[in-house]
Amino acid sequence: MSTRKIYLESLPRDEALSRLLRALDQAGWGPQREVIPTDEALGRITCEPVRARISAPHYNAAAVDGIAVKASDTFGATETAPRILTIGEQAFWVDTGDPLPPGCDAVIMVEHVNLLDDGHHQGARCEILAPVAPWQDVRQIGEDVVATEILLPEGHVIRPQDLGALLAAGILEVPVVRRPRVTFIPTGTEIVEPKADPAEGEIIEFNSRVILSLVREWGGEPVRHPIVRDDYDLIRRAVREAVARSDIVIVNAGSSAGSEDYTVHVLKELGQVLAHGVAVRPGKPVMLGLIDGKPFVGLPGYPVSTWLTADLFVKPLVFRAQGLPVPERETVRASLARRITSPMGVEEFVRVKLGRVGERLVATPISRGAAVITSLVRADGLLVVPADREGIGEGTEVTVELLRPLRDIQETVVVIGSHDTSLDLMGSWLRRKGGYYLSSAHVGSQGGLLALKRGEAHMAGVHLLDTDTGECNTSYVRKYLGRPALLVLLARREQGFIVPKGNPKGIGSFRDLARPDVRFVNRQRGAGTRLLLDFHLRQEGISPEQVQGYRWELFTHLNVAQAVKAGDADTGLGIRSAAQALDLDFVPVAWEEYELCIPAELEEHPGVQAVLSLLRDPEFLKAVEALGGYDCSDSGRIRRV
Amino acid sequence: MSTRKIYLESLPRDEALSRLLRALDQAGWGPQREVIPTDEALGRITCEPVRARISAPHYNAAAVDGIAVKASDTFGATETAPRILTIGEQAFWVDTGDPLPPGCDAVIMVEHVNLLDDGHHQGARCEILAPVAPWQDVRQIGEDVVATEILLPEGHVIRPQDLGALLAAGILEVPVVRRPRVTFIPTGTEIVEPKADPAEGEIIEFNSRVILSLVREWGGEPVRHPIVRDDYDLIRRAVREAVARSDIVIVNAGSSAGSEDYTVHVLKELGQVLAHGVAVRPGKPVMLGLIDGKPFVGLPGYPVSTWLTADLFVKPLVFRAQGLPVPERETVRASLARRITSPMGVEEFVRVKLGRVGERLVATPISRGAAVITSLVRADGLLVVPADREGIGEGTEVTVELLRPLRDIQETVVVIGSHDTSLDLMGSWLRRKGGYYLSSAHVGSQGGLLALKRGEAHMAGVHLLDTDTGECNTSYVRKYLGRPALLVLLARREQGFIVPKGNPKGIGSFRDLARPDVRFVNRQRGAGTRLLLDFHLRQEGISPEQVQGYRWELFTHLNVAQAVKAGDADTGLGIRSAAQALDLDFVPVAWEEYELCIPAELEEHPGVQAVLSLLRDPEFLKAVEALGGYDCSDSGRIRRV
Repeated sequence: MSTRKIYLESLPRDEALSRLLRALDQAGWGPQREVIPTDEALGRITCEPVRARISAPHYNAAAVDGIAVKASDTFGATETAPRILTIGEQAFWVDTGDPLPPGCDAVIMVEHVNLLDDGHHQGARCEILAPVAPWQDVRQIGEDVVATEILLPEGHVIRPQDLGALLAAGILEVPVVRRPRVTFIPTGTEIVEPKADPAEGEIIEFNSRVILSLVREWGGEPVRHPIVRDDYDLIRRAVREAVARSDIVIVNAGSSAGSEDYTVHVLKELGQVLAHGVAVRPGKPVMLGLIDGKPFVGLPGYPVSTWLTADLFVKPLVFRAQGLPVPERETVRASLARRITSPMGVEEFVRVKLGRVGERLVATPISRGAAVITSLVRADGLLVVPADREGIGEGTEVTVELLRPLRDIQETVVVIGSHDTSLDLMGSWLRRKGGYYLSSAHVGSQGGLLALKRGEAHMAGVHLLDTDTGECNTSYVRKYLGRPALLVLLARREQGFIVPKGNPKGIGSFRDLARPDVRFVNRQRGAGTRLLLDFHLRQEGISPEQVQGYRWELFTHLNVAQAVKAGDADTGLGIRSAAQALDLDFVPVAWEEYELCIPAELEEHPGVQAVLSLLRDPEFLKAVEALGGYDCSDSGRIRRV
Repeated sequence: MSTRKIYLESLPRDEALSRLLRALDQAGWGPQREVIPTDEALGRITCEPVRARISAPHYNAAAVDGIAVKASDTFGATETAPRILTIGEQAFWVDTGDPLPPGCDAVIMVEHVNLLDDGHHQGARCEILAPVAPWQDVRQIGEDVVATEILLPEGHVIRPQDLGALLAAGILEVPVVRRPRVTFIPTGTEIVEPKADPAEGEIIEFNSRVILSLVREWGGEPVRHPIVRDDYDLIRRAVREAVARSDIVIVNAGSSAGSEDYTVHVLKELGQVLAHGVAVRPGKPVMLGLIDGKPFVGLPGYPVSTWLTADLFVKPLVFRAQGLPVPERETVRASLARRITSPMGVEEFVRVKLGRVGERLVATPISRGAAVITSLVRADGLLVVPADREGIGEGTEVTVELLRPLRDIQETVVVIGSHDTSLDLMGSWLRRKGGYYLSSAHVGSQGGLLALKRGEAHMAGVHLLDTDTGECNTSYVRKYLGRPALLVLLARREQGFIVPKGNPKGIGSFRDLARPDVRFVNRQRGAGTRLLLDFHLRQEGISPEQVQGYRWELFTHLNVAQAVKAGDADTGLGIRSAAQALDLDFVPVAWEEYELCIPAELEEHPGVQAVLSLLRDPEFLKAVEALGGYDCSDSGRIRRV
């Protein structure tokens, strides 16, 4: 535990990086050369022009199967005055690739050879009906490449075909840029190696795996140091050893401020701090320095911060160490689905989902939590809010750096709305059966209809009870979407109280939620399940204030179930499949219809059609029912609103 | 040697492939599953949806450094009526990532804690000036992912961030698609392992290296069988073993028709021939079959054919074995620089160079020889002439599949024209110093000016003697280009007779070329060197018929030098650096000016500017002079025509 306060700078990103690069230039840090066998050179980068050692072909070779001749022996041959050549004297059988016999300078294809005698033996005669030119059907020495010619320029990434050319030209070893060795030192007393059953307080160390995998993709040679606990001397020793053995050293701070503190002091002792604190979010506390003329990078501990700052500060080093420019990510222009706010003076990197709905590409910001690694799994792109802006307004055209191929994004059906466990399953099936990806975001039923209205999604999952009419969904679609749409039944599903095994608090009805000994966990506003709760509370005459935990909002059924599982709540309202997934008990309250709302103009979209046929696929529906609490007998039913 | 005639089919490519794929489907051939450590899963493909094993975080964790409290203890706190909490009783110091102590449900950041006593010890008191909400600054269990949730869908290529998510969710092993094992059997008695000094008739085996490198890039596991000589039993045994051990078996025919013959008979004996002969060029004699329910591919021997047919027939197998669609290459539209003719009924794959000159992307066909592996090194793209067309006209808009990133192509300066040894050197220097690529094609000086006129190039290398005026280049530029241009001197260079060491035939003047004992090798029509020859022959009153070898045309100085080196010619006219490169002797004839002709409208092009500054770089000019026969004292001189 540390409460020492570190005052971080807030350097602009470009300035921080160029301080480091300038210092490295002065220290003479850069690409190193090594000579490796050509057989192992795939993907490596030439560090100088590579010249052919021998010519290819290295002898005059028959280019076809046939007879090798001296061209001048055939001069004057015509159909009426053929030349007769004798095998073994003026004509010699050759296969493709054979060297020309001495004195020969042309080949006549076997198809054009008229044998006068039976057989191919020495002494057999053949007639030639037309003259051949010198070097006809001969691959002359150096046709492909002449010895001393430059085969590959400097800085060339060696591809499969290049290996062929190198070997053809007699080059068995190639001078290439040595892969820069990058050592990653994870630090933190609370950090443990990956395990399936970590104890409370143990934090699984996976940043090294993520960052070193990136290093490998960038062309570096990753080296992982074992975890070092928060101890100044141990960290210093690890850093010193790593600097001696590597081209780039990364220390990952762990998640405590304490260990970061050690890192900066180690850097001060062993080398020079060039930047500590950069005006980027997430990732501010990044640290850049120089030890023995080599770059040192201290990466912050939260995984999204680690990933982003490695991308911003380690990637340029790995490429510079190979003499290569940093490859730019492909970018697209998209329309921002929701306003983003961001503090002045900080460059903020926002992860977004992208969806092609109609002609528009729409970027929807996702979780901004620096600790949420799955947000990087789900992200399609990165959007930068510049330091001099406080935010970006809804509907603004923005530039998004792609983290996923545009083609895949275009083949994605976007579902925004209520959370349902079966959507994950649908994603896998849709990929396999229909060739489409499914992207789902859980913002509640009302949020889904609004996203649909704004053109951000192809469909919205909705289950909204009209408490006036007792009807489901239709009145809400009219109200929030306001244009013709299809309502397609995904399934009927059972809502109820998710409770611990054995229902220890004996939850049986909505009245129990008002009991002082019952801690409830709620869903967010706009969720269909929240509406269901409010409807029943009103019916029972219970006010929200009477429900302990009414204001504790979670975004998915599974999160609610998890809160019950963990003992943080005694119950929550949710679907049976969530209770079943976490091995909890379930007190049913009502069946409801979970429908997909699809704007009529998108009905013919092939991805939408793929979803519709999945909803008529008995195999898929069986898999949904196996989740528990689903009735798929009417799945695929279409209502037009 | 074999003269047995094999009659090949000429199946359309799609039909051949779908025959094979149908047969494989019937045989139940497809992706195989294996479970591997998550640490080794980068780039692998999930073969089923992967669900979280534990929630992440797996306990309620402090999201900041500060004190953990029970939120309800702070309710009602204000600046005027603060709540006092005692460390160790109602408040507990926590670092980021620490579990919440029992009973706590919120964290107050250290910056907002007012310590009333000195120090952090048990019993110290702190005051709270505002209430905190439950779960404030707490990472709740499952915030990132809830146990049982689908983390990665089926068919997902695992990226660095996915590894992080998997490990965070307690997943130490992942079910993935097993890499399909692809065995490549090189056959041919004349084939040898790569060596630096192959004997005449020995053919270096590099196809296996090229194709297995592709297999690796496509996600397969490459296995190379040692070379098998042309022997039916040996080939049969190798195939049988490979089928038992692999998912896909490739036999490479070597370059002789004989071995191909063995291959098809082996396939007939062990399995079933599905296609032998496909209507593609190059690569017609490809062979597809099935042995023990596994695919067998016989690839033709010429390296470009091997590469192309592997792309057409092996790639789809490797991807299908991973449950993935074949990735499509990026395509661009370009204007065809020269007419291509192609036989009806055959799909022809033409390698092209691409150049962005002004607004146009221009595709220039390069060598169509199936044996020229360097044509694949040089190619920027592939252009398909469909089977139902006899060719494509000059200037036609065509679709080109990219073999090189478009960005690199756009950063390429295109030089078409006369061959000069220093252009290779310029390529390397331009890349390093100016950040541009150089693409050079050798079509002679006149050809270069015509390419410039058609907008295919940024500059043309020219050395054209006006035999009327004795002046160099200017009159030709006016005549062939016909618009304002710059003529920039690259260097003065020495032309002369390239002769074997010691000049055994005593070549001393153009008159010697008419001697009956002198075999000459010429350059192609349109080459400046050819014009120089013709000028001198005319002056000497020698007719071309008197020169033995006048009609033997090679395209570069180095190829001419190589012909002399090999003893196929006694002399040829060329530049000193070519003689020097191959350690030959040189009889000087004349100094000439080799200039780069640049259309005036391209003068400001940054790549052109990069070339111009290179021509003023003393270091570069020194390197050019070191090639031999160059005088760079006026290099960079600009004349406007």
